[in-house]
Amino acid sequence: MIAAVVGVGLIGGSLALSLKERGVANWIIGVDNNTANLAKAQELGIIDEGSTLEDAMDRSNLVVLAIPVDATLGAVVGILDKVKDGQVIMDVGSTKHKLLQLVAGHPNRGRFVAAHPMAGTEYSGPEAAVKGLFTGKTMVLCDVKNSDEDAVEMVEAMVDKLNMRTVYMNGEEHDLHTAYVSHISHITSFALALTVLKKEKEQGRIFELASGGFESTVRLAKSSPDMWVPIFKHNRNNVLDVLDEHIRQLEQMKELLQSEDYETFYKLIQKSNKIRKILK
Amino acid sequence: MIAAVVGVGLIGGSLALSLKERGVANWIIGVDNNTANLAKAQELGIIDEGSTLEDAMDRSNLVVLAIPVDATLGAVVGILDKVKDGQVIMDVGSTKHKLLQLVAGHPNRGRFVAAHPMAGTEYSGPEAAVKGLFTGKTMVLCDVKNSDEDAVEMVEAMVDKLNMRTVYMNGEEHDLHTAYVSHISHITSFALALTVLKKEKEQGRIFELASGGFESTVRLAKSSPDMWVPIFKHNRNNVLDVLDEHIRQLEQMKELLQSEDYETFYKLIQKSNKIRKILK
Repeated sequence: MIAAVVGVGLIGGSLALSLKERGVANWIIGVDNNTANLAKAQELGIIDEGSTLEDAMDRSNLVVLAIPVDATLGAVVGILDKVKDGQVIMDVGSTKHKLLQLVAGHPNRGRFVAAHPMAGTEYSGPEAAVKGLFTGKTMVLCDVKNSDEDAVEMVEAMVDKLNMRTVYMNGEEHDLHTAYVSHISHITSFALALTVLKKEKEQGRIFELASGGFESTVRLAKSSPDMWVPIFKHNRNNVLDVLDEHIRQLEQMKELLQSEDYETFYKLIQKSNKIRKILK
Repeated sequence: MIAAVVGVGLIGGSLALSLKERGVANWIIGVDNNTANLAKAQELGIIDEGSTLEDAMDRSNLVVLAIPVDATLGAVVGILDKVKDGQVIMDVGSTKHKLLQLVAGHPNRGRFVAAHPMAGTEYSGPEAAVKGLFTGKTMVLCDVKNSDEDAVEMVEAMVDKLNMRTVYMNGEEHDLHTAYVSHISHITSFALALTVLKKEKEQGRIFELASGGFESTVRLAKSSPDMWVPIFKHNRNNVLDVLDEHIRQLEQMKELLQSEDYETFYKLIQKSNKIRKILK
């Protein structure tokens, strides 16, 4: 089949590579407003050709939207307006609730499948695309009851071929859960980077001592604002809730340190150690 | 030479393995209050024999203290009291200022070298010990001007053989810098784990969506409270300062989200992206 990938960055590019490698698609049309990225993607063998959205819509069986979530919201209705018989439109964005509300009443709603691969890195652009990014990872499919059966089956078959695990939930659940296990991680990383970069201005040598632990907690701060600001915007209420709770936890630790209540601090750390049962 | 390693956990055990492998020591005496850990360390080939601190002090050229920082403070004076001619005592703890104040006036202060390898993992105990943990990492040596020249030379030669890089600073600088590039990372991880574990009680499926980004920011929350509470206690003022600043950064992000000032939020993320120049 012919797949069109709109947005040939980290996620779109990696998906294009995987679709080809796993034999899901035999031809990949890339679409990107950024012509330099489009040329780069072709040069790197990520896509077979670059084209316009209209041409890609005309010729492909599957259209994957792998652009920032605000851009998806801006484009999806026009795309669904023009969808052809049997064609499937799929997004891979990090927020779902607003998007699913937007397409809810569309006459071609059934051709749309909302998907979110729980995979990524802190890098962006076609150079960041890697084969195997999705292997063993989870694909969340949202509100599949509102998608046509054949459209869901096409996406499920793809997910199987990519060796991914499928999780089904509605858009609201998805946005709540990702606020906790993805979006807040980015907020804390951005804030931690700012904290330490600020101190570096007074204490130039500070990074000489940085090691694996620091790198681990701060690496997400390399992530692109073009991708992340729209996510925080679309998932604002959930992100604010989890951010409130996170600040409360930090305030509690601060108070325990201030009052030198190391016994309670010890118990808190023990409690947080329960994350061991989740992370292998 | 004969090296004694007091505390055969992650750091002490890894150091024991490296000293042997790199030919720095040909015999390793392990010392540990936890007899099960001592037996385990011998079974794993990390140490050549287990013994008492007194016996180890009698027979070794180098004594490495690799125990929690409060235990080091409790033991170091008694150890310096009994140090023999030419013997070197070295610690590998994560805080230095209080320790260096404590030994400052000791008649055998010169035999002591304060060292901190900027390496580790979130695991603990002898089973967590790995060869090569220190390769390519930084060893901080503190206040070497107060150590005897031959003692510093012995430690520097070891650092060279372990393929580590040396950074020199005083205890105060060390504690300030590690608060920013190590201790705060652990606080944010502990707090993030608590935030998400709390939510899991309402929303059982939350971790199904956890992926690499989440794991990265939260893995340090597996770290042992036995090691970390004493560090936060000894470095309380610096940790409180950086925690204050970190909470301020998070509050700022929260306010920007509340007021929907996405333009400023975008600029903040761009600023935090400067961490790219530090982390490769």
